[in-house]
Amino acid sequence: MTRFLPEIPSIHDPAWNARVQALIDQKTKPLGALGMLERLAHRLACILHSEAPRLEQPQMVVFAADHGLAARGVSAYPVDVTWQMVENFLAGGAAVSVLARQNGLALHVADCGVARDLPQRPYVAGQPRLWDCKVAHGTRDCSSAAAMNAAQCDTAMHEGAQLVRALPGNALLLGEMGIGNTSSASLLLARLCAVDVAQVTGAGTGLNAAGVARKIAVLRSVLAFHHQAQEPLEVLAAMGGFEIAAMVGAVLQAAQERRVIVVDGFITTAAVLVASRLRPAVLERCVFAHRSGEPGHTIMLQALGAEPLLDWGLRLGEGSGAALAWPLLQSACAMLGEMASFDSAGVARQQAETASA
Amino acid sequence: MTRFLPEIPSIHDPAWNARVQALIDQKTKPLGALGMLERLAHRLACILHSEAPRLEQPQMVVFAADHGLAARGVSAYPVDVTWQMVENFLAGGAAVSVLARQNGLALHVADCGVARDLPQRPYVAGQPRLWDCKVAHGTRDCSSAAAMNAAQCDTAMHEGAQLVRALPGNALLLGEMGIGNTSSASLLLARLCAVDVAQVTGAGTGLNAAGVARKIAVLRSVLAFHHQAQEPLEVLAAMGGFEIAAMVGAVLQAAQERRVIVVDGFITTAAVLVASRLRPAVLERCVFAHRSGEPGHTIMLQALGAEPLLDWGLRLGEGSGAALAWPLLQSACAMLGEMASFDSAGVARQQAETASA
Repeated sequence: MTRFLPEIPSIHDPAWNARVQALIDQKTKPLGALGMLERLAHRLACILHSEAPRLEQPQMVVFAADHGLAARGVSAYPVDVTWQMVENFLAGGAAVSVLARQNGLALHVADCGVARDLPQRPYVAGQPRLWDCKVAHGTRDCSSAAAMNAAQCDTAMHEGAQLVRALPGNALLLGEMGIGNTSSASLLLARLCAVDVAQVTGAGTGLNAAGVARKIAVLRSVLAFHHQAQEPLEVLAAMGGFEIAAMVGAVLQAAQERRVIVVDGFITTAAVLVASRLRPAVLERCVFAHRSGEPGHTIMLQALGAEPLLDWGLRLGEGSGAALAWPLLQSACAMLGEMASFDSAGVARQQAETASA
Repeated sequence: MTRFLPEIPSIHDPAWNARVQALIDQKTKPLGALGMLERLAHRLACILHSEAPRLEQPQMVVFAADHGLAARGVSAYPVDVTWQMVENFLAGGAAVSVLARQNGLALHVADCGVARDLPQRPYVAGQPRLWDCKVAHGTRDCSSAAAMNAAQCDTAMHEGAQLVRALPGNALLLGEMGIGNTSSASLLLARLCAVDVAQVTGAGTGLNAAGVARKIAVLRSVLAFHHQAQEPLEVLAAMGGFEIAAMVGAVLQAAQERRVIVVDGFITTAAVLVASRLRPAVLERCVFAHRSGEPGHTIMLQALGAEPLLDWGLRLGEGSGAALAWPLLQSACAMLGEMASFDSAGVARQQAETASA
């Protein structure tokens, strides 16, 4: 039994929903004419329980770890790229570094299980921060063992939750780094949503067709090896990664605190999938930043009833899509908080005889 | 013959394209992993002819005018909403006002032909500015006359060009306001792209099904009345609007100056369609912010080979979608200018045996 599995009550409240919708409908625009921006504003008003929600001190956390399965040739990049990219995040040169800087997001890197020892460094205000959440030096190869044991899975979740608890603000943006982790995401999706793994396995960061075929064969054998793992936490421990388990904990914690959770691509969504199987109401707190180019992501988003903001064929991870989409959330808040109403602006309403039903 | 029809040379340059692409490909990410962000960065680098393009002093202009055809019941809103919304833009309460403020866009409103006399007001730095570009108090009803005569069309184009010439910066964002102007956009599209008007006519700001059917019947009769208008400028004068003609001039001027042109929804895209029939190379300078909920917009974007950034079902106009998408352009520039390369960051490259072709 895990130490960390908080209750997450639903925040669904029909009266509040109607109140927010009425507010949106009084803005100087035809009903529904701002499309997704209106739905996004509505969601943020519900999560933050405010008629003029304000996003404060947004925190981007890149959860990083290595995967034993990477030894089976499921990735286009060598394992060392995990720690090299962690250094790149901290040095400010990665995509997520650049986009977080542009958009005023505090950037954190959580070492949940990178295979290499990362030197700790003093934290400098305004710079990316490295958190030591290391559970082990990478998971075991899940084609022949559980990726982690129950205690490790529990520790990773706990570390993720603790980290979120330590962060200020009311919005958490999820990012991740881990060579081999699209494999974990495909495995979690295949098992938890009962879809064929071939349907949800893609090129990751850049496999060619032969590489994808090899990856599918490896993942099929992993699923067969772990045929007994069916419950969400069992599946997570058997075939997940430390960064994914930490994100499950982070999502549960953030949801409990009623933070806005901005989900990035395939791997972060896999963590949300696991969290939502444990506590379905976490989904009410999520905003899905984009639909990635990874084929499994579309299926995963559909399974979660998610409506992604961008459809840009991103397949980088890191939280790059979440960071990119961030200003769109700010726009939704600005629309709700600052737009005039028909009455306040003295603008005539739609003519009754032409009104849509 | 129009006074204003500058030459717009193509900026296509294979050597430069390759140089920019190589720069993007050296960034610390798998090839193509930032999807649309890479294509957008490439385009901005080509328009601004810089390996580290910077967007400077972006200018949002909302071109406003009234339409004689509105008397035929083609809109869900009364004609007075045009001037009322102009006041709302200037007062800071409209969607485009809020989004321009959020994203640091200078906001201008160009009165190209609003039916009411708008009181001029002193310009206050940092506030939205009203420009007097009025050609007439609305176009004529194009179901029984040309919307404007050739001289008026010419004047409107000239006013739009002059306005752009007066503005600083290297990016122009297009917005518009005019009750009845989705009708003009549908008419221009139907004639210039030879598609059936029923296919490209939608609810505009909120007609019901009967309203749309009536609108289609009116537009069909307008097209029949103007069956002789076939050349772009003839079509524009016969069935366009003063704000659309002014945008055609603005687009030509901005393209000539090699500014980035950020196109909003259905009506601004119609102006780009006309401009591109006069000078095809204007399209090389355009970024299409979104695909609107108006059915004709998809067809129009396809005709222009455009790849919109957002697909949010927006149908407000005003420039709201362009303003919303603006930070995404900034992200593209930041990616290109600030991301580390594999070499500079010491990150290993893809393993050769797995590389995609």
